[in-house]
Order: sequence, then structure tokens, then C-alpha cells
Amino acid sequence: MSFSPLLKQLIEAFRVLPGVGPKSAQRMAFYLLERDREGGQRLAHLLTQAIKQVGQCEHCRILCEKPVCAICDNKNRDRSLLCVVQGPAHVAAIEQTGGYPGLYFVLQGHLSPIDGRGPKEIGIDAFVRRISTNTVKEVVLATNSTVEGEATAYYIADLVKSHNIKVTRIAHGVPMGGELEYIDGGTLAKALLDRTLV
Amino acid sequence: MSFSPLLKQLIEAFRVLPGVGPKSAQRMAFYLLERDREGGQRLAHLLTQAIKQVGQCEHCRILCEKPVCAICDNKNRDRSLLCVVQGPAHVAAIEQTGGYPGLYFVLQGHLSPIDGRGPKEIGIDAFVRRISTNTVKEVVLATNSTVEGEATAYYIADLVKSHNIKVTRIAHGVPMGGELEYIDGGTLAKALLDRTLV
Repeated sequence: MSFSPLLKQLIEAFRVLPGVGPKSAQRMAFYLLERDREGGQRLAHLLTQAIKQVGQCEHCRILCEKPVCAICDNKNRDRSLLCVVQGPAHVAAIEQTGGYPGLYFVLQGHLSPIDGRGPKEIGIDAFVRRISTNTVKEVVLATNSTVEGEATAYYIADLVKSHNIKVTRIAHGVPMGGELEYIDGGTLAKALLDRTLV
Repeated sequence: MSFSPLLKQLIEAFRVLPGVGPKSAQRMAFYLLERDREGGQRLAHLLTQAIKQVGQCEHCRILCEKPVCAICDNKNRDRSLLCVVQGPAHVAAIEQTGGYPGLYFVLQGHLSPIDGRGPKEIGIDAFVRRISTNTVKEVVLATNSTVEGEATAYYIADLVKSHNIKVTRIAHGVPMGGELEYIDGGTLAKALLDRTLV
């Protein structure tokens, strides 16, 4: 290839980003160097800062540069309700609905024994400490509806029950606005099974 | 949203990258902070370095941290052949074929008067200086086959002809391995028109 050594290294470095292959990495490097050096400089600066400063909230384990995040620090939130999610992006998704009054616990992904990700790796020990404080009255499981997410939910449900705490799972069914003919059979079967009284 | 201020800024900063929307930016920020801080640090460092050091080759205007790039500096390349491309990625694409022995001139994109990108903005003045040195015997136009790329090629062709230099355009036609039934009509018509003796 005909790129200068520094350019080659920069393109290679962009490939650490998720979903970025050789062509996208090249495009990103060229774009920043040709069109937006200021934006690139800002990105490099904020990335360095965030890597240095951003840690995990000591209560919910969300990414945060302060010891305790804004949600856990908010005195108006319902401390008896604890929602378990697989990652910080899921907290953002739920917060955007504006309909959840409680707190969160953020797992480091899902259980995946085959990749060496057991309960300890995803942060179950911290979760157990959290629910042992007697403030939590209900745990809402909001892990993904994938096989791995469901398995993780089952595992946590058992754990929570053994602490005599109520445990619920977010509802599965037809998405709002969804047309029945385009919904997969598994979802439709689940929607029929979990039908609610009107 | 529930992200901490620094995290919000970092996600926003990722959006300068081409093709990166709010969700991808969020994913990139989380991925680097949760899974690969080392890779993120390396990216930030190389980006800062490249922004500081990478400029343009003074002959061909490719991105390069030295005054003259490796291609222009290579004494074995045919100095009478000058290939005009729209960006550094196109140089890489042509170099990968291994079949081009000459030098390059890299434009800053294509002519686009509507966006205020005239001949001066894409570097035509430097190109004219380049072909005025009497070493170039043939200019190969390898701009994109888009409307803008073709318009840019026509503009440059006129310019080169006025300097009494031979000017050629890369061939357009059916891609190698392409099946005729899937080729668009415009390409097929061009392929028929430009048929070559066998």
C-alpha cells in the first residue's frame, strides 16, 4: 500500500472501533485529516480525557466520571426498584422512555461461559451486595431478549428469589405499531401466552 | 439522557466521523471505555500526532508526513505519466492493482460550484503548475464515474489539451466477472460503444 507510515498506523488504530473495517477506517482517517482536523483534535482530546477520568458509578456500575452517577444521586428516584440491564446504552434507552422511576444495575454484558464470562465477570457479586442492603423491594430484569440475555435473566431471577425479593421481567410481545403479519412466530406465541386483561 | 457530561461530549465528538450517527457514536464510546481503553488511547494519540504532522506531498498532494511522498520519491516510477484522482483513497486503490507505473496528482474532491468548490478549491492551480514543468507526456483521468467526477474529468481534459499534452480517461464498461443481466443500461451502452478489437 502507498500510505505513509503514520497514516497506516492511524488507519489501523481506527479499526479498534466496533463495526469499522479497513475501508471505513481509511475513510475516517482521510476525512478527519482532509476535512475536519479541528473535530479530530477534539475527538482525540475527549477520548484521552474520558479514558483517564471515566470509571463506574459505585452503586449501579454505569460509566461515569464521578464516584456516584446522576441517577443514583437523584433523591427523587424510587430506591426500592432496581432494573438490571446489560450495558450503559440500555440505561439510556430506558431513560429515554421517561417511564421508569427506579434505579439501575448495569451488568458487564451477558453470561457467556464459552467466552469465559461467568457471574463474576459480568458483575454479579456487586449485584448481590447491592440487593443485600434491604432497600430493594423489586428487581426488574431488562436484559436483551436474546438467548444469552434470557439465560442471564434466568440466572439472576433465581438469585434474587433466594434473597426473598420480588423479581419481574419486562414484557415481551408485539412491538407497538407492529403489524401482525410481519411479527415472527416466537414473538406472536409469547404475545398470545402473555395476553393481558383489558 | 442519562449520560455523564464527559460521556455526552465524547459521544458527540465521535459524530464527526463520516457515517457515524448517534447510535454508532454511543456504541464506539462505550466500547472503548468498557472493553478497549488501550486501543482508545492509541487511537487518540495517533490522531493527535497525525493531525500535527500529516500534510500534503508537495508534488502530488497526497496525505503524507514528509514533504515528498514515497511514490513521488521513487526514482523507478515513470515521470511522464500523471494520473489524476479525487482523493488519497483512490491512489491506494490504484496502487493495489500494481499495474500503474506513473505518478499521481490528488485533487481535493470534485468540482461542485453549488457547494463553492471551484477549480481553485480542488487544487487545479497546483495541477497546472505540475503539468507546466514539461516532464508529463500523458495525463490519465481517473476521477469517479459519477456525474461530478465526469464533469471534473472534462474540465481537466480541456485544460490539459490546451497545454498540448496527451490526455486519457480510464475505461468504463462491464466490471470483470460481471454478469450482463445485472449491469445497468448506461454501463452496457458505454461498454458496447467503447468495444475493443480482440
